[in-house]
Formats: sequence, structure tokens, C-alpha cells
Amino acid sequence: MLEKTTRMNYLYDFYQELLTGKQRDYMSLYYLDDFSLGEIAEQFSVSRQAVYDNIKRTETILEQYEEKLHLYEKFQKRRQLLNNLAERLKGKMTDEDQLCSLQIVKELNELD
Amino acid sequence: MLEKTTRMNYLYDFYQELLTGKQRDYMSLYYLDDFSLGEIAEQFSVSRQAVYDNIKRTETILEQYEEKLHLYEKFQKRRQLLNNLAERLKGKMTDEDQLCSLQIVKELNELD
Repeated sequence: MLEKTTRMNYLYDFYQELLTGKQRDYMSLYYLDDFSLGEIAEQFSVSRQAVYDNIKRTETILEQYEEKLHLYEKFQKRRQLLNNLAERLKGKMTDEDQLCSLQIVKELNELD
Repeated sequence: MLEKTTRMNYLYDFYQELLTGKQRDYMSLYYLDDFSLGEIAEQFSVSRQAVYDNIKRTETILEQYEEKLHLYEKFQKRRQLLNNLAERLKGKMTDEDQLCSLQIVKELNELD
């Protein structure tokens, strides 16, 4: 379950701009703010089932975007490669070169 | 015009999986294979205007995806940073460290 929550958080992060306002509202309350289905239902004056259905549907949509664009998969590979690179750079150059190279690695990480 | 063609080629590359089959057919013939509107119209037995409208609409869709996901923009920034990094690594470490580091940079470039 924790694994699914982590994955959904990332998928939401990458593809939220492609969702509707309501899908974003429900997903962010449920996955980011840890609201229960009942709490979300109460807040929007809809049934618990309606919230559940909407969230399940949105999860499917996010997985479909990931199947097509692979942004989360690429992010994970990139993160791994950048970590390997940062490790390899340490202690191998002058302090200044190392500082500048690691700064670039940091900027690359922040682009995702 | 060349600039627009380059941009559309990249946007198509990043977002083609989100288009319909027909949108992909027209776009790839027009932008990748350099067919004229008339040639595409003939091939699909539709009017030149229909092809034109479809391609204009698809261009708008691609720009809307880019406004939301910024994949082309991030690709350009990443390419620039990786080029800077590769330049900085050259001649600063042992041959083996340099080879391995530049190999990782290559893999990062290929991820896009």
C-alpha cells in the first residue's frame, strides 16, 4: 500500500496538469493530504462511492499516461544515473571542478 | 519556417503517443517525411482543407501539451547542462574515470 501511495504521488506529480480540477482536488486530498474517502465526500457533499469511483478512474488515467510517456520510469533511471555520476566525481578532480560539476548534477536533478 | 518545423518535430516526438492514429499519420507525413498537404490528401482520399485543418488542430494540441508538461523545454535545458558537464569533465580526471563519467552522461542524453 505504501508502495502504491508513493507511485501515485509521483504519477500525480508528473501528470496532474492533464487532469480535471475535480480529479486534482480528490487526488491531492487523498494521496497528498491523507484524507479518508469519507472526509473528502463530506467536504464536497457527494457520496463516498462517488469519490472512490473518481479516484479509481483517475489512478487508471495516470497509469495510462505513464504507459504512454514513461515520465516516472525515466525519472527513476535518471536519478540513478545522476547518483552514480555524483559518486564517481567525488575526490577525482580539483575542488573547484568538483564543485562546479556537482552543481550541474544538482541542477539536472532539480529539472525533474 | 525551419524553426517551426524543428519545434514541431520535437513536440511530435515527445507527445505523439497522446495523439490519435490519424493525427499521427498526417503529422508524420507532413513534418517528418516532408509530404505536401495535397499529397497527403490524395493518399487518404480527403480534401486538402481537411488535412490542413487536422494538422493545424494537432499543432495546437501539441503546444497545449507542451504548456502543461514542458517536456521539450526541459529536454533543451537538460541537453545544455549535460553538454556543459561533459566539457567540464574532459581532461580533469584519470582516463578511466573520465570514460565512465562520460558514458553516464551519454546514457542520460539517450534517456530523452
